[in-house]
Amino acid sequence: MEFTVRQIAALLDGEVNGDDTLTVSRLAKIEEATTGSISFLSNLKYEPYLYSTGASAVIVDRSFTPREPVAAALILVENSYSAFTRLLEEYHRQLTFARVGIEQPTYLHASSQLGEHVYVGAFAYVGKNCRIGSNVKIYPHVYIGDNVTIGDNTVIHSGAKLIDNTVVGKFCVIHPNAVIGSDGFGFAPQPDGTYKTIPQLGNVILEDFVSVGTNTTIDCATMGSTIIRQGAKLDNLIQIGHNVEIGRNTVIAAQTGVSGSTKIGENCVVAGQVGFAGHLIIANNTRFGAQTGVSKSVKEEGQSLNGSPAFDLKDSLRAAAVHRRLPDLERRLIDLEKEVQRQQRTESGQA
Amino acid sequence: MEFTVRQIAALLDGEVNGDDTLTVSRLAKIEEATTGSISFLSNLKYEPYLYSTGASAVIVDRSFTPREPVAAALILVENSYSAFTRLLEEYHRQLTFARVGIEQPTYLHASSQLGEHVYVGAFAYVGKNCRIGSNVKIYPHVYIGDNVTIGDNTVIHSGAKLIDNTVVGKFCVIHPNAVIGSDGFGFAPQPDGTYKTIPQLGNVILEDFVSVGTNTTIDCATMGSTIIRQGAKLDNLIQIGHNVEIGRNTVIAAQTGVSGSTKIGENCVVAGQVGFAGHLIIANNTRFGAQTGVSKSVKEEGQSLNGSPAFDLKDSLRAAAVHRRLPDLERRLIDLEKEVQRQQRTESGQA
Amino acid sequence: MEFTVRQIAALLDGEVNGDDTLTVSRLAKIEEATTGSISFLSNLKYEPYLYSTGASAVIVDRSFTPREPVAAALILVENSYSAFTRLLEEYHRQLTFARVGIEQPTYLHASSQLGEHVYVGAFAYVGKNCRIGSNVKIYPHVYIGDNVTIGDNTVIHSGAKLIDNTVVGKFCVIHPNAVIGSDGFGFAPQPDGTYKTIPQLGNVILEDFVSVGTNTTIDCATMGSTIIRQGAKLDNLIQIGHNVEIGRNTVIAAQTGVSGSTKIGENCVVAGQVGFAGHLIIANNTRFGAQTGVSKSVKEEGQSLNGSPAFDLKDSLRAAAVHRRLPDLERRLIDLEKEVQRQQRTESGQA
Repeated sequence: MEFTVRQIAALLDGEVNGDDTLTVSRLAKIEEATTGSISFLSNLKYEPYLYSTGASAVIVDRSFTPREPVAAALILVENSYSAFTRLLEEYHRQLTFARVGIEQPTYLHASSQLGEHVYVGAFAYVGKNCRIGSNVKIYPHVYIGDNVTIGDNTVIHSGAKLIDNTVVGKFCVIHPNAVIGSDGFGFAPQPDGTYKTIPQLGNVILEDFVSVGTNTTIDCATMGSTIIRQGAKLDNLIQIGHNVEIGRNTVIAAQTGVSGSTKIGENCVVAGQVGFAGHLIIANNTRFGAQTGVSKSVKEEGQSLNGSPAFDLKDSLRAAAVHRRLPDLERRLIDLEKEVQRQQRTESGQA
Repeated sequence: MEFTVRQIAALLDGEVNGDDTLTVSRLAKIEEATTGSISFLSNLKYEPYLYSTGASAVIVDRSFTPREPVAAALILVENSYSAFTRLLEEYHRQLTFARVGIEQPTYLHASSQLGEHVYVGAFAYVGKNCRIGSNVKIYPHVYIGDNVTIGDNTVIHSGAKLIDNTVVGKFCVIHPNAVIGSDGFGFAPQPDGTYKTIPQLGNVILEDFVSVGTNTTIDCATMGSTIIRQGAKLDNLIQIGHNVEIGRNTVIAAQTGVSGSTKIGENCVVAGQVGFAGHLIIANNTRFGAQTGVSKSVKEEGQSLNGSPAFDLKDSLRAAAVHRRLPDLERRLIDLEKEVQRQQRTESGQA
Repeated sequence: MEFTVRQIAALLDGEVNGDDTLTVSRLAKIEEATTGSISFLSNLKYEPYLYSTGASAVIVDRSFTPREPVAAALILVENSYSAFTRLLEEYHRQLTFARVGIEQPTYLHASSQLGEHVYVGAFAYVGKNCRIGSNVKIYPHVYIGDNVTIGDNTVIHSGAKLIDNTVVGKFCVIHPNAVIGSDGFGFAPQPDGTYKTIPQLGNVILEDFVSVGTNTTIDCATMGSTIIRQGAKLDNLIQIGHNVEIGRNTVIAAQTGVSGSTKIGENCVVAGQVGFAGHLIIANNTRFGAQTGVSKSVKEEGQSLNGSPAFDLKDSLRAAAVHRRLPDLERRLIDLEKEVQRQQRTESGQA
């Protein structure tokens, strides 16, 4: 996408100082920008770059006065940093929703309905009785099984798989090769040592504004639903077991695993590589450090936990500090034992 | 799929009390069931729901007598819980094997053979010299390389990749985006600090009744075979390295990693996020707690291990309990040291 | 691929003792080889197999003299082990680069350029303005977005996804279902508890000779580039966050995660399931044990670290040994406390 400096200034309620007919097509840091880029100057530490940058345009604060001549067109705004952020978001929004239409070949079952302005990439598959909202973007190699519902403005990236009966809300983003709704891990042990598969007949529900990371897997419920509540954000390579529930606005970092039937509350923050046992209930506003092992429910809200098994974050850091000194502690304990025994013998001798 | 209450009663050797011409198409919990659903009542705690449920039919024990009028048709059986389980399994089986035929477009090399009643979804790829058994279900976006053999009644879900020379047994299930037979991680360090790739020319063998989870990766052997024995069940996002062997009926939970050439015995139970070093031998019937780090072979059968590095489960829980009190222990040790030094000084003063 | 014994002898500068018109098509261990296989004998422990092997040909040292009759043709070379390794590499190279041509159907945008001798498998997708080098192999179900550059001799396996603006060097291997360039995990917390997506507009650069494992995910930079330097090797199911940099010839084992903006130096060796916090700088030649949790930068080169949180490997093994004895240590501490108190009381009594 290409814009003139004038168009961008209009979008940002800014004023142009320089050639407003120049075109820009990229956003870049001021120290790395080349012709065709737009950049910004907020922290004055970077001011020297303004006089040497290759950027075609630079957004600056209205209050700023250059001390040397500037080759780039300047766009003067109230706050250059927040204006640049707005520009990033607008650019991202346009990139995301620019794709419209159905590439060939695709497999779209006749019983499924597509909303307006959808994009369906080549080699995408949509099964029976699906309802796909407006502005939905379905990238190449996406698989959508039967009876799947997808809300407006949701983006499903290449290679993601939505298994039968999955329900996805509005404004969700499902990243490449994520799998939603595959079978939970349920096997009943038999007397002869083998395992019988427990049929997994439930589904997965993603509410609105949910983000599911690349190669993340969310298993369907055995019966009922695995649920990711509104605004929850899941990073890459996460495992969500069957019948799990993740609360509103909870954020989970990469490679964390949540075992079956665990319910994590709202506004929790879970770092990377954390593991949750099954059938736990985690209170709202709980925070977990990286690699924490959570084997018990958390009843009190607002705690920070760490370690495997998990306990209070500060206590765990103190314990970890002593842990490093364990060989020294053991040596000192042995010395004490010897000294106390010596004193004991002396005492006996005295007696 | 839709069935009449009469058909279901016949399947379950049950008797109908009510309208046996009603149709049902879904299974549901009694407290959540709506018209068109069939449910069951086993635990009498749930009896009140029987009188208000929206279910079209409910399976109950023959010995049960309702205290109030029931709108749903009742199916009377010996044991309502096990009858419902049979129904779940039958429903699941029919769902799984209902798909037959070849969708378009697909890529099927002429040199490969397909058995009877197979399903091949659109955009599936089958390379040269493959032998695909009967009742095999190959979902959209599956990739099957050259010289792959797949036994009867195996299901391969969307996006799974079976690389050249993979052998899959009967009644296996390979979940979406799992990858079987890609290169092992083998690199020979060179004098200049670079690494040379060690060609990985072996394959992967899955015996019968193996389950491979979503986004799980099983590397081919350097030479010979990586083997998953009969009835082993692997959850999601697991890494199985080259030349590994997983014993019969061993169950491994999500995000566990097994390094190259390690052999895990039969009937082991491995929890989530466990890591195994390479070249280990693990005895039969060993159990591993979540996040265990296994750096040594396990020779004695039937142990339960935990912790990183791994040791006896009960001992590890006791050590973890003391670990939390380490800062207190260190303080007490320091107090003792002071007291003993004081006593020493007193003793010297006495001398 | 099939070769005569004579062709192989010529490749290896060897001499044939036996029938040089036999054909072989497989490489195998001497104890497992069957007709049509070629094997080698280096370690004389395996000599007995030479007299019973089913191999059609066996590579042996020129200095070796059989004590019994051998059915297989012998290929005599200076060093049978290194000759066999050369054969493996040549076989692997031929296997890798044998595929040429464009299968149907594929989606290749007209604005993209393909080099010579490329392979594009069925159902592969190449977006706008891509430049694909010579000898590049693009397997079925690969997705290549817009503005992607791929250097000569790079292989991209089935189901891998290269998102817009990714740059891949020469002689790289990208394994199945790996995802390169998807959005980093960036969300700005809002006053109402929700999160706003921070647009991720940067890209990923893989330099030459990089290997990316199966189902591994490498996020694009927020702005600028996530960079994997020349010769770095990443195993399966690894997470590389946005704006990370991995140094030259650094090797990372499976299921490790590197959080955003961390820079790992050159020639590091990272074992499996290691976690790195964000914004760290790791010195060259650092080694990390399995499951290490790295929360601080490493300034001094050449260290070996282990544990969570990480410290010196040897110290961590010593601390872990004491950790197992913690319940015993606590008991001994309590005994000492009692004894010292008793002595204290005795002393007071004496006073």
